[in-house]
Amino acid sequence: MRATIMHKAGDVRIENIADAAIREPTNALIRVTRACICGSDLWPYNDMEPTPQGRPMGHEAIGVVEDVGKDVRQISRGQLVIMPFGYSDGTCPICHEGINTGCPNGGFFGSWETGGAQAEALRIPYADGTLYPIDVGEDDALLPGLLTLSDVMGTGHHAALTSRVRPGATAAVIGDGAVGLCGVIAARRLGAERIVIMGRHEARLTLARDFGATDVVRERGEEGVARLRELTGGYGAHSVLECVGSAQAMETALGIVRPGGAIGRVGVPHYAPIDGEATFYRNVTIAGGPAPTRAYIEELLPDVLEGRIEPGRVFDRTVGLDGVPDGYRAMNDRESLKVMIKP
Amino acid sequence: MRATIMHKAGDVRIENIADAAIREPTNALIRVTRACICGSDLWPYNDMEPTPQGRPMGHEAIGVVEDVGKDVRQISRGQLVIMPFGYSDGTCPICHEGINTGCPNGGFFGSWETGGAQAEALRIPYADGTLYPIDVGEDDALLPGLLTLSDVMGTGHHAALTSRVRPGATAAVIGDGAVGLCGVIAARRLGAERIVIMGRHEARLTLARDFGATDVVRERGEEGVARLRELTGGYGAHSVLECVGSAQAMETALGIVRPGGAIGRVGVPHYAPIDGEATFYRNVTIAGGPAPTRAYIEELLPDVLEGRIEPGRVFDRTVGLDGVPDGYRAMNDRESLKVMIKP
Repeated sequence: MRATIMHKAGDVRIENIADAAIREPTNALIRVTRACICGSDLWPYNDMEPTPQGRPMGHEAIGVVEDVGKDVRQISRGQLVIMPFGYSDGTCPICHEGINTGCPNGGFFGSWETGGAQAEALRIPYADGTLYPIDVGEDDALLPGLLTLSDVMGTGHHAALTSRVRPGATAAVIGDGAVGLCGVIAARRLGAERIVIMGRHEARLTLARDFGATDVVRERGEEGVARLRELTGGYGAHSVLECVGSAQAMETALGIVRPGGAIGRVGVPHYAPIDGEATFYRNVTIAGGPAPTRAYIEELLPDVLEGRIEPGRVFDRTVGLDGVPDGYRAMNDRESLKVMIKP
Repeated sequence: MRATIMHKAGDVRIENIADAAIREPTNALIRVTRACICGSDLWPYNDMEPTPQGRPMGHEAIGVVEDVGKDVRQISRGQLVIMPFGYSDGTCPICHEGINTGCPNGGFFGSWETGGAQAEALRIPYADGTLYPIDVGEDDALLPGLLTLSDVMGTGHHAALTSRVRPGATAAVIGDGAVGLCGVIAARRLGAERIVIMGRHEARLTLARDFGATDVVRERGEEGVARLRELTGGYGAHSVLECVGSAQAMETALGIVRPGGAIGRVGVPHYAPIDGEATFYRNVTIAGGPAPTRAYIEELLPDVLEGRIEPGRVFDRTVGLDGVPDGYRAMNDRESLKVMIKP
């Protein structure tokens, strides 16, 4: 089958690899109907060391179930399913508590062991605990929005929840990528009164305003911190959605959160350890992590199906598998916001 | 007036200093009727460098209002009041949000600027925003319990709240000092099903059981982590109340918190920066800080007045001012749990 393999920074190829196949009785096999490129895929696209076999890419998908192992009970052939970016057994206490990405039997897609979603097909470990069947057609207009429940919309929701967005609060969203924009949707959905987006890409800022952002801060670093503080009477934001993961983003987050406020981190961390003393004296909460998007589908799905939120608008380009390498380039150049793949 | 001055590690003296007096129209002057020695006073008792004038000590008190400045509206002469360990204006957005210890006009007692509570009298900045009048007699049997609302009971409550103790949860309390024991009370009060106290002082562990602890872990370091994990099916605690502040305590906290769990820190931090990557991947929340005890009095007071909680039992010794130096020694030697002072 054809799949996306990254060999080193900047080197993404479409290759023929062994067909995905069921290995364990709890597995399912899906034919990928929609996948996409994630902002987090750009980290290795910029810094991956060369490896002999490269790395299968992709962890977001909607697909049709082609086959299931003999112990699979909830999922059956022919169903259209959302595949969250992490797999999980669905039966342990951690999954029951809604932290599927902390499941001791769980893991993440995008390796030789698990396979990547930017491919024709994919093996799904723990299909019952991982996949979420949806009752729409294979070409439904809602598919882009539903695809975001695999990662970015659930991740934006996680940033909003863990930064404790609540009615009346001021939320600041760091990052104008797809996750940041979904963070704006999530913050509005949870009732934030004021939503400040921090970014500088005009088309994305326009989309952020459409999604509910009330203010824009284009400055970065110390200037961005000063501007955000000015907008909030000097106090800072109650909730900071850190949707980047860079050292500068985290520094900004720590600079703009108000005493007693919370930072919800969902950007893959590329920063030094966190100053435990400064955060202590200001009663700042640091929360977040890999979003348990599987657990959030149930809550977010009706809003997508009924059009109350439109996270699918983060996709501004659709490619076939052959277009994936250029899709990486376009996202890395910030020419494209998020690329959808129809394998 | 007579006051407690620490000159260097191990050197605490009772000295005659200038009488406390009102300086600003928003100040009050209180005659201290009850004060106490705090676990956090033991940090300088162990590591303070010598200074020419030393440092006035004490930040917990109940007192009688002797005088008020002309702009004080809510507090009047003759009232018995609880003095939280931090003062705050009570009027800014941060105070309104219940984070009085983050008040931009606020600060902490226990310096030449603010005075110390282990003394005959004390000046209170922002009396209206700081003091909390109580309607009991000057020698009421409830005074020890009420005195804990100045710091340790409110601080234990803060650890429980910020570590998100909820009905059915497993809470682990690190530290068997007065704050840890009050953390046990708070965790029980918020409905934790299982409360594990981590400590090794038998008398304190007995008190912890009286307060609601269901399990005891006496081991420390890696062994303590392993024991706690064993007690929780390998998953760790939902809520960790970090009531010490040492590097080992924080390391233990990070080791025993389960994926998706939270650490509520209330021990003054004496540890290295926090690993932002490991906490991220486990979706661990790090919260807490100096407890806004002023904001918590309203919620906790009825439980103390009606005897539903008995935090006053943490006091196991009462001294006059002359007994304060030996009180420090006794607490430092873990001979005494917490020393009350009747100046």
